[in-house]
Amino acid sequence: MTRMKILTEAELRGIVPLDREAVACVEDAFRALATKAVAMPPILRLDIPEHRGEVDVKTAYVPGLDGFAIKISPGFFDNPKIGLPSTNGMMVLLSSKTGLVQALLLDNGYLTDVRTAAAGAVAARRLSREDSSVAAVFGAGMQARLQLEALALVRPIREARIWARDAAKAEAAAIALGGKLGFAVKAETDPRAAITGADIIVTTTPSGTPVLKAEWLEPGQHVTAMGSDAEHKNEIDPHAIARATYVADSLRQTRRLGELHHAIAAHLMSAEAEFPELGQVIAGLKPGRTRADEITIADLTGTGIQDTAIATLAFARANAADAGTTFES
Amino acid sequence: MTRMKILTEAELRGIVPLDREAVACVEDAFRALATKAVAMPPILRLDIPEHRGEVDVKTAYVPGLDGFAIKISPGFFDNPKIGLPSTNGMMVLLSSKTGLVQALLLDNGYLTDVRTAAAGAVAARRLSREDSSVAAVFGAGMQARLQLEALALVRPIREARIWARDAAKAEAAAIALGGKLGFAVKAETDPRAAITGADIIVTTTPSGTPVLKAEWLEPGQHVTAMGSDAEHKNEIDPHAIARATYVADSLRQTRRLGELHHAIAAHLMSAEAEFPELGQVIAGLKPGRTRADEITIADLTGTGIQDTAIATLAFARANAADAGTTFES
Repeated sequence: MTRMKILTEAELRGIVPLDREAVACVEDAFRALATKAVAMPPILRLDIPEHRGEVDVKTAYVPGLDGFAIKISPGFFDNPKIGLPSTNGMMVLLSSKTGLVQALLLDNGYLTDVRTAAAGAVAARRLSREDSSVAAVFGAGMQARLQLEALALVRPIREARIWARDAAKAEAAAIALGGKLGFAVKAETDPRAAITGADIIVTTTPSGTPVLKAEWLEPGQHVTAMGSDAEHKNEIDPHAIARATYVADSLRQTRRLGELHHAIAAHLMSAEAEFPELGQVIAGLKPGRTRADEITIADLTGTGIQDTAIATLAFARANAADAGTTFES
Repeated sequence: MTRMKILTEAELRGIVPLDREAVACVEDAFRALATKAVAMPPILRLDIPEHRGEVDVKTAYVPGLDGFAIKISPGFFDNPKIGLPSTNGMMVLLSSKTGLVQALLLDNGYLTDVRTAAAGAVAARRLSREDSSVAAVFGAGMQARLQLEALALVRPIREARIWARDAAKAEAAAIALGGKLGFAVKAETDPRAAITGADIIVTTTPSGTPVLKAEWLEPGQHVTAMGSDAEHKNEIDPHAIARATYVADSLRQTRRLGELHHAIAAHLMSAEAEFPELGQVIAGLKPGRTRADEITIADLTGTGIQDTAIATLAFARANAADAGTTFES
């Protein structure tokens, strides 16, 4: 007789909000990536061009965690035509000791949203100035909103600006967030105005051409680029990468997928150039920000360790709250 | 509201026996591999040496099938010490059109056993002589038993011999199978005696050194090598491969994992040499057996299309029988 827990998206939203513990578990996973024998194989990718579909499968084992997640992330881009979301997905949590399935997390991508935002908080905590109080966010989708919430967990944010290509969406996001976060959030129609005087800038767009110009950046600013999780995406002017203190979530990935990839393609950086990874900065193995007037850039492409970290937290919370359905077979 | 079916191992054993339809669906999948735009990415592999664990994730999309399987196969080799099986696993069946999860097949490896045996039947049907009536099986485990059952579905088997390194296990398997299959099954203590006069030989051992010598083979025999699903496994004398009509399930895989890999390593074959694949033989694109006195060898390393085929069959049968648990979220 084996026993597993099944957790629905609604249950997971209840027990795994974006909070300090979510940020801490993702930070711990990044630290482990730099200090322990983490296993994180390359992503399994299946394409179904006939239905404009794709599926990514990610996994990572983090020593010290009881379980490891296998995340299945489908994207089927004709779904909206029949009233379904393009992306959904789930995680399977397996025991690190026995390989038995512990839990099925039917999150439809919710846990990915949380762990992605949590990584933004980790990057800001490790790379932005401690007194950072003004945030600028590019993009007005779910991740734009969560990134701002995440920043507010780790820095004394008192003002935020939102810029998006679609001004109406930026306005709507600003209104929704202002009500929720308890500080001024305003929409900006000019991206340069949005970042002028900002301490932290987070880009969350799916743009294929840079939305942030190098010459706009001011001394002391920190930039987190969240949007680039595929070869063609590019939010940051490659000249900015070349000029700043650059930190990758996983250098192996950012060389191939991230903003760094475009700086390499533009011959502004060498493909072999070494940069610190976020985990190394957390562990104190490499420096992050060393001066208040330094410009720092975190290039976050998304890693399997974040999935394993958040899935493990979700399972622990579900057990503590006796949430979910137990399925025996 | 999304809806998925959950099927337990017991339910799957009830609705997906090893039968002619299982063989046919696996054969169709191999045919598709040769004739359609099948997508079958390389296996995702995670190793957890700390707990002597490993996990393989396989997937394949077969045009024409409504769903595709993502199979999670853990092997944790310290499990028996705590009373658990080493291997378990499950499949997630997703819709090919929307990416939504259709079913969770908690089969603990049962469906893999069936699709692996079914591939043996397909190979025998396409490569052995039609009048093949004497079978020899090396190994006495689950797959040895299923392979013999599978052969009996496609050839007029009237006698079988079982050889295994452990004579007592061979004896037990012979007794169990003789009672079930309705023809004579006897254990042999000498592997050469087991194959002398046999029409079909199936090797199902985890051996790392050849258990079948090239000089033992007789004209007209067909050999299916099932055991080699990892680099270090090697059941067939590489000289036999060089001498026979060789057919791979997936040439990309057998060059790396299969018996062919060892023939290449022994410099008996070129790493670039072209051979027919089973699907090409099924589709009539390449010849298989052309003469009664030819020796044929099928090298089966296991493919994701077989998983997608059997999972699709299981889901159709579950719907028809209204089997399983429907989970709404």
